[in-house]
Amino acid sequence: MAKVLEPKTGRPEYQTVGARVPKLDALEKVQGKATYIHDLKVPRMLYGKILWSEHAHARIRKIDTSRAEKLPGVKAVITGYNTPEIKTGFFKDNPVLKKDKVRQFRDEVAAVAAESEAIAEEALGLIDVEYEPLPAVFDPVEAMGKDAPLIHEDKESNVLKLPWKMVLGDLDEGRRQADFVVEESFSMPWVTHCCMGTSGCLAEFHANGNLTVHSPTQIRYLAQRDFRDAMAALGLKDKRVQVVTTAIGGAFGSKLDTYPFEFITILLAYYAGRPVKLVFSREEEFFATPSRQKVEARISQGCKKDGHLTFREVEMVLDNGAYTSWGATTPSVMMMPISSLYKVPNVYYKAKCVYTNNIYATAMRGYGNPQATFAIESQMDTLAEQAGIDPLEFRMINANTPGELTPQNFEIGSCGLKECLEAVRDSLNWDEKKGKQDGRGVGVGSLIHVGGGARIYKSDGCGTIIKLDDFGKVTVMSGATDMGQGSDTVIAQIVAEELGIDVEDVAVAMGNTDMETWDVGAHASRTTFVAGNSALFAARKAKEQIFEIAAPILQEPVDALAIKEGSVYSLNNPEASMQLARVLRAAHFKTGGTQIVASHFYDPPTQMLDKEMKGNFSVAYTYGVHGVEVEVDKETGHVEIIKYVIAMDVGRAINMMLLEGQLEGGAAMGLGYSLMEELHAEKGKILNPNFLDYKILTFPDMPEVTSVIVETEDQFGPFGAKGIGEPPLVGSAPAIANAIYDATGKRVRSLPIIPEKLVAQEDE
Amino acid sequence: MAKVLEPKTGRPEYQTVGARVPKLDALEKVQGKATYIHDLKVPRMLYGKILWSEHAHARIRKIDTSRAEKLPGVKAVITGYNTPEIKTGFFKDNPVLKKDKVRQFRDEVAAVAAESEAIAEEALGLIDVEYEPLPAVFDPVEAMGKDAPLIHEDKESNVLKLPWKMVLGDLDEGRRQADFVVEESFSMPWVTHCCMGTSGCLAEFHANGNLTVHSPTQIRYLAQRDFRDAMAALGLKDKRVQVVTTAIGGAFGSKLDTYPFEFITILLAYYAGRPVKLVFSREEEFFATPSRQKVEARISQGCKKDGHLTFREVEMVLDNGAYTSWGATTPSVMMMPISSLYKVPNVYYKAKCVYTNNIYATAMRGYGNPQATFAIESQMDTLAEQAGIDPLEFRMINANTPGELTPQNFEIGSCGLKECLEAVRDSLNWDEKKGKQDGRGVGVGSLIHVGGGARIYKSDGCGTIIKLDDFGKVTVMSGATDMGQGSDTVIAQIVAEELGIDVEDVAVAMGNTDMETWDVGAHASRTTFVAGNSALFAARKAKEQIFEIAAPILQEPVDALAIKEGSVYSLNNPEASMQLARVLRAAHFKTGGTQIVASHFYDPPTQMLDKEMKGNFSVAYTYGVHGVEVEVDKETGHVEIIKYVIAMDVGRAINMMLLEGQLEGGAAMGLGYSLMEELHAEKGKILNPNFLDYKILTFPDMPEVTSVIVETEDQFGPFGAKGIGEPPLVGSAPAIANAIYDATGKRVRSLPIIPEKLVAQEDE
Repeated sequence: MAKVLEPKTGRPEYQTVGARVPKLDALEKVQGKATYIHDLKVPRMLYGKILWSEHAHARIRKIDTSRAEKLPGVKAVITGYNTPEIKTGFFKDNPVLKKDKVRQFRDEVAAVAAESEAIAEEALGLIDVEYEPLPAVFDPVEAMGKDAPLIHEDKESNVLKLPWKMVLGDLDEGRRQADFVVEESFSMPWVTHCCMGTSGCLAEFHANGNLTVHSPTQIRYLAQRDFRDAMAALGLKDKRVQVVTTAIGGAFGSKLDTYPFEFITILLAYYAGRPVKLVFSREEEFFATPSRQKVEARISQGCKKDGHLTFREVEMVLDNGAYTSWGATTPSVMMMPISSLYKVPNVYYKAKCVYTNNIYATAMRGYGNPQATFAIESQMDTLAEQAGIDPLEFRMINANTPGELTPQNFEIGSCGLKECLEAVRDSLNWDEKKGKQDGRGVGVGSLIHVGGGARIYKSDGCGTIIKLDDFGKVTVMSGATDMGQGSDTVIAQIVAEELGIDVEDVAVAMGNTDMETWDVGAHASRTTFVAGNSALFAARKAKEQIFEIAAPILQEPVDALAIKEGSVYSLNNPEASMQLARVLRAAHFKTGGTQIVASHFYDPPTQMLDKEMKGNFSVAYTYGVHGVEVEVDKETGHVEIIKYVIAMDVGRAINMMLLEGQLEGGAAMGLGYSLMEELHAEKGKILNPNFLDYKILTFPDMPEVTSVIVETEDQFGPFGAKGIGEPPLVGSAPAIANAIYDATGKRVRSLPIIPEKLVAQEDE
Repeated sequence: MAKVLEPKTGRPEYQTVGARVPKLDALEKVQGKATYIHDLKVPRMLYGKILWSEHAHARIRKIDTSRAEKLPGVKAVITGYNTPEIKTGFFKDNPVLKKDKVRQFRDEVAAVAAESEAIAEEALGLIDVEYEPLPAVFDPVEAMGKDAPLIHEDKESNVLKLPWKMVLGDLDEGRRQADFVVEESFSMPWVTHCCMGTSGCLAEFHANGNLTVHSPTQIRYLAQRDFRDAMAALGLKDKRVQVVTTAIGGAFGSKLDTYPFEFITILLAYYAGRPVKLVFSREEEFFATPSRQKVEARISQGCKKDGHLTFREVEMVLDNGAYTSWGATTPSVMMMPISSLYKVPNVYYKAKCVYTNNIYATAMRGYGNPQATFAIESQMDTLAEQAGIDPLEFRMINANTPGELTPQNFEIGSCGLKECLEAVRDSLNWDEKKGKQDGRGVGVGSLIHVGGGARIYKSDGCGTIIKLDDFGKVTVMSGATDMGQGSDTVIAQIVAEELGIDVEDVAVAMGNTDMETWDVGAHASRTTFVAGNSALFAARKAKEQIFEIAAPILQEPVDALAIKEGSVYSLNNPEASMQLARVLRAAHFKTGGTQIVASHFYDPPTQMLDKEMKGNFSVAYTYGVHGVEVEVDKETGHVEIIKYVIAMDVGRAINMMLLEGQLEGGAAMGLGYSLMEELHAEKGKILNPNFLDYKILTFPDMPEVTSVIVETEDQFGPFGAKGIGEPPLVGSAPAIANAIYDATGKRVRSLPIIPEKLVAQEDE
């Protein structure tokens, strides 16, 4: 059970907000009743399969599909040559079916729709592709060289044209002011999302030419927009595209973009004239879905004798892989900790994203923040040591504070970083344990993240429609997406609290672009904040309607009315009270009657970053601190986690149980990133595309996590809440690296920190 | 193609209203893609089957289910003895599983859920029921006798306590004023709906205890309310009930109530702990679903020498069968033609509904009106003949007129009865063909029906939610039900017209109590009027929002704006124009942006009938006239339809193609009722429960129907429209009977008018 630090102002008497409400769909999921894409079947459905490239870089000389087409049960065989060209991705540099050349082993060369998966698989083997191998490049630094093979011939170089440079304050002045300066390099590997549910979708054209795509997407409205490209290519641009979200078996950013396989499924459905479902095998999930990006970072920071930071300089090279998805935009988020984790007046940041013939990169929980924070927070310890200051104390000296304006122009509202540091200090028994280097050690890693939306698109909004029925049951139709994080539950609680009813009386409908209003997607830890505010304001409008109906019945003024425990009552006169359901029926069951419907579209006052990369990106920022105690076996390099604590400034806890779940899940993912996870590639080919060779934490590996919930009551959040979806993994790697250093004196600067690195002679 | 008589005021230039728009779901249906209850499958679904009574009236001594329970694959066997008592129907006199005694062969004695239909069927055969037969009564007049066996022992008599008596004006005075008086008796048989899709439903309990019922119901919100009774009986009264409408394979009133089989399916799902689907066989559909009621009517009317009616007196006995569904309330609608078809100052009506051991009765298209109108309109010819006036002229003399207040206090607004009579006169070439009695003859039958809602419940309303997306696509979430009549299409047209967009850009979502706001159901020909107005007013609210957004962009005042062909423009300045989709994106894609959602709940100012049976039941009344030319073979009694014309006052045609469809479908049903359809019963047992023995019109039997659309532009209807779902069959039987009389001189007073009756010596 989490420890809760309430705000100094105290905590209002909430009925539902802050309660331990189990996920609304928990029982359905554990009983196997939730419908994942894997479970979905529609009449006349075919099965799709993709033929992948056999080379990292090669010209396609010829594709002969004639043998595959003749196989009984095959209903469509498509290639880049018999379908209209559709390009996808952030730079539209990724043809959904490759023509002329392939740039990676994961490239889509052809696809088949057939009566069964087995027939589709067999048909793939009957497609003959003639390749002419081309020189390839797998190292981004090499790829920047003049003689490097060009991955995209229509571009001047392999370096992507992106604006990732940020200069805040005066770096030279910051260096001059510094009494202590350190400079280090850090290296972060490819890791992948490891969703238990592999990727897939189901596409179906209706008799009227409209398209429905069932997909476990995090971004059904942006996907709808993207799929319209496919419709336009097929000459169906005026037709309607409906995206329906299935239950999502894990997402973590992997489903934040649209990918070639989805367009391929649409094309297969179109050409076969029947619904087509395409679901990845586990191996495909490993090698064909984009991953968290491989990053090399050089970082330098300096401070005065009193510990105050004077500058921070970071340069990065990101391996973009062969195509561009969201991975190339993660530097926009990396800027956040670089500019605004701790008070640092002078900041320089530059990042290059470089095409290679490797796998490409997409969003993943934290969106660049874990990589940047590993470098920053590892180095905070190095710098503290140089300055002779306790690392935790060093962080307290530089900690952000409420009301601060950071150099990147982030307006920090609520901020519990100091409270989090204190809580971790207490929890780890820091002062006693620190600095012994006897095989046991403690370390911390702080973090900042957006917690109040993040404007990465023209709209950062979310719409909600609320309807109440004659029995006091409420349906909330929300544009938001629940990908397992429990946002449906949080939204239900927010509406229940505002309407003074039981959370069981609220059903949250999400998942159909036709039925609900827009939401930009489940990213940037924004759902509780943005969709929560949207639901809150819609509920408030519904409540106003309830009071207008109840006032003449109760003969009390509207502004004297309140609702609690399912009854409308007067604050002036406790006798004047009526069950909500009866109020609703009184409104409905008469000539000229009505039912209550309310809607709200909430778009937060977030700002897009300007050309100088400044702007108040989010309406609220979340802070947290990971604290770890480790024991390191000097012989084997095995790291045992003795204690793991996360203190998170959540603004306000809406659901204590789900918060703990997020913290524990984040810790698990962070521990994996820190200690074991890595996609290994050789000349562009993934060597460990399975859970035997790609190690993630399993249940017995997982230490107990101590959760400390710091409530700072954000002024803009729903009931004061901020989003904390991503942060619980962000501070993990530096906290562990710092604890290992405290235990062993060994500084490891490359992830994952596997035993081999700890028993090696040199620092890594 | 229908002939259209436009209103005298002319017709505004509509884009979509009045167009021949094919049903939106037509292609899906003809391609077999629509999901009927028969197609629906959910994971882990079981199949339900009901064991029916073997007696018309018997005491149940014992039910032994032990052998059935042991059959492998059987998951639940339920009876009235191992389940909580649930009673259903208008008088709650119908236990969903019979205990103690059965009152009809259609009675539900036990039910089984099993892994397959075959296993369920086999299990039924293993249930042993011990009956003690009781004396039964099958004639309602006998059932009123003192010694008649009491069907429900808890009641004093077999005559239902119902208020069906109406006294308007002074009957004695009316009789005194009459120069001509006739009195006759008419007899109408049991007929059934003959839906191509048999009845069925699928019930599923969710992990949280909530219930979803998939059902082709016409009344999903009233069904939701009814199913809550089942939940209460199971101790789940606070749980949520969701009713989801499947595609409906014909309804015609048959799905206007909830029936024992639905509650049984819910109970089976509950006790089996798995979803259960129960679908009737064709035979069950014939014998176990309630039918149109068997009615005996005595009617007397009188008129002056100038033809003006002075009184109308009607007495009826209705065979209620063993239980009470909507059939017992049809006299409330029969009152309408009795009081208000033609101007008749003095009216008396009394109806008795009597329990028997026969099948019971529910709603069916026309809801009593066809029976009453057959008597009235047959007799109008007899009376006209007595008075020496041409029957069509006789009707013109007595025809209702706009602005009239009828003795039952119906406020007649728009009224095109005279125009309809004229149109039929022209179309039949009446003056030339009439009165020859040479084997060919012409006849007419007028009708009145509600066309602007009908308040039979506390709410006569319908809710609509409209949302617009970034591409100018509109979703209309309507409480209404499309049961094949095309109400989705009509609603789409109304919204498209109001928003100035293409009907293809409107999707209508209907069918989920969780997602849409309330509607009382698809009855009383109310959907175009009530749901249409609801959609129209919601669209108007959306349009207001559009104009408020567009006004500053176009720099034009809000009240100068209009929309047409997908563009917002200024009436003042034709240069100021912008595509709707661009207006919507301008509203959305900015900080603090929004998306347009509008909702409206429309409850028409209809009145419930008071104790005197007076009140303005509907906001609009529909009139129409059926005209028929027949040729009768005197040897065989075969009736050939030479010409069939229906002239209908529709207020305003929204969709000419669907109107024709309704008129043609009504004619087909009316012809069946007139000439061939009848459920034959012997001692309560249906003898012809199949389409071989129960004759309905097939395609080759169907004459061409000439449709005349009379537009009267109703002041309250959407774009002037009135509802005409039911009327196209109401005037059929008297028109045919009158034409046969004109052809042969033979008056047949019992339906159906089968050849045997025409070759018989006596009038029937």
